[in-house]
Amino acid sequence: MSVNILFAAPANRWAQYETHLRTALDADGLDYVLSTDLAPETIDYIVYAPNSDVQDFTPFTRLKAVMNLWAGVEDVVGNRTLRVPLARMVDDEGLTQGMVEYVTGHVLRHHLGLDAHIVNPDHRWDDAAPPLAGERPVTILGLGALGTACGRALRTLGFHVTGWSRTEKRVAGIECLHGPDGLARALRGAQVVITLLPQTPQTENILNARSLALLAPGAFVINPGRGPLIDDDALIDALDQGQVAHATLDVFRTEPLPAEHPFWAHPRVTVTPHIASETRPPSAARVIADNIWRNETGKPMVHLVDRDAGY
Amino acid sequence: MSVNILFAAPANRWAQYETHLRTALDADGLDYVLSTDLAPETIDYIVYAPNSDVQDFTPFTRLKAVMNLWAGVEDVVGNRTLRVPLARMVDDEGLTQGMVEYVTGHVLRHHLGLDAHIVNPDHRWDDAAPPLAGERPVTILGLGALGTACGRALRTLGFHVTGWSRTEKRVAGIECLHGPDGLARALRGAQVVITLLPQTPQTENILNARSLALLAPGAFVINPGRGPLIDDDALIDALDQGQVAHATLDVFRTEPLPAEHPFWAHPRVTVTPHIASETRPPSAARVIADNIWRNETGKPMVHLVDRDAGY
Repeated sequence: MSVNILFAAPANRWAQYETHLRTALDADGLDYVLSTDLAPETIDYIVYAPNSDVQDFTPFTRLKAVMNLWAGVEDVVGNRTLRVPLARMVDDEGLTQGMVEYVTGHVLRHHLGLDAHIVNPDHRWDDAAPPLAGERPVTILGLGALGTACGRALRTLGFHVTGWSRTEKRVAGIECLHGPDGLARALRGAQVVITLLPQTPQTENILNARSLALLAPGAFVINPGRGPLIDDDALIDALDQGQVAHATLDVFRTEPLPAEHPFWAHPRVTVTPHIASETRPPSAARVIADNIWRNETGKPMVHLVDRDAGY
Repeated sequence: MSVNILFAAPANRWAQYETHLRTALDADGLDYVLSTDLAPETIDYIVYAPNSDVQDFTPFTRLKAVMNLWAGVEDVVGNRTLRVPLARMVDDEGLTQGMVEYVTGHVLRHHLGLDAHIVNPDHRWDDAAPPLAGERPVTILGLGALGTACGRALRTLGFHVTGWSRTEKRVAGIECLHGPDGLARALRGAQVVITLLPQTPQTENILNARSLALLAPGAFVINPGRGPLIDDDALIDALDQGQVAHATLDVFRTEPLPAEHPFWAHPRVTVTPHIASETRPPSAARVIADNIWRNETGKPMVHLVDRDAGY
């Protein structure tokens, strides 16, 4: 029994992924056809980027599942023509590790006040030592695979970490809060807040004028999650008032961030170009192949999206 | 039996330390007199900063030990009038933790290329993702308390860490090399090198033209150890040639770094004002009190300096 796999993503991705996917599918002992061009009614699985040409799944009458190449599914989860299971990309080796490095790097950067040494045109020698990590409360909004991994890394470095999630979770070493009441408690007095929530109607603008006011004065905001988690105007107000000392943003409502967007020129905003977490082809290919193998051998697939929750 | 303890350090240190020292000495149940002014022939212990007024230990005829307030002892170890045990400051809670935060922060900063996002006047959106930590070989020169703690933290974050020490050491997860032959192997191909060696005649200028040439082209140098570990002119040459992409330096032959020193204006040098690791009075006071208590109760003191090795 052979499975037919369509690779539906922009052309440059095929060049990055083809070899790695074949290696991983071979390693799992699967008999398969993998191509960017197959008749829709013959296809069993689609390896899928939400910005590909495939937007109508109706012709794929034999489809068993869609394997998303991205961690984010907001651009596909609402597609009513998609009626088979959808798996998110959870690439511990590439995506999660990359996110941990980005988040840890920027938390330490703000914690240690590195910018004042990197840009020091007056050559000031100001030897006030920063506080230790244990004196720096950090709050992570979102305790999925990424938020949990970042929380653990920060905890290991000595930070006091609070995590918030929609539903109750437990992570050793992290103070875990949940639900609407927990959100205010998680944000109150935080000196660093990191947004790693999925994008849903409930999480949109979760950092707004009211929630930003709960942070410790002079707090740092780091958003490597999704652009719409933040109310841009409220953030700029909080930055102008000093309530937020600096924001480091990796994701935006429109990407690349338009040249006229005020984030670019704001002296207290650092823009990074959606690089916090990149799926790495070798490990991502193994995740996809393993999930297809699971389904073909009667095992439950992993990382399936809950359509009602939206992630 | 009461012990007489002289506090010999610049005046501002007394203000920072007195309360914490009394708290720690009380907690250890010691009967003591602690003062900045005691007759030399009555003194049992000196809590000592090498830049204090005390430079001749001859009058201290009853002296049992000198407890250094600093991790570095190069300004006192050669003092021939000092004939009693000398203890270095090993303040895990403050000094070691602070060093781990500084080193981890700057390694991640260089690894992730943060400077290009922090200073981005042309608002470039260049979304090439950095490599993962596992692809970034980091070498630490020095596997004492500080080097080992930093190596462990970097290893936990995923970096490939090699450590070098004068004598053979073993640290789980770190490739440990030693001696003159090991030094060349440790430096060859390193993309980040961190100098955390004691300052001795053997370690002076350990990073020189020859050793810097062994690093991977475009390597990063981080020196939070001691200024004289680096040949300043050789480093500037390596920076100008691109062999070293950037140097982040916290310690210098003269501090504060003189205004005319070329490090200040060099575009590829970041100067930090000797803040990588600060002894924190609460924890440092406990280290000193515990060591006095050990000696008074017949236990061997810890962190004693080997005068021959120089640290």
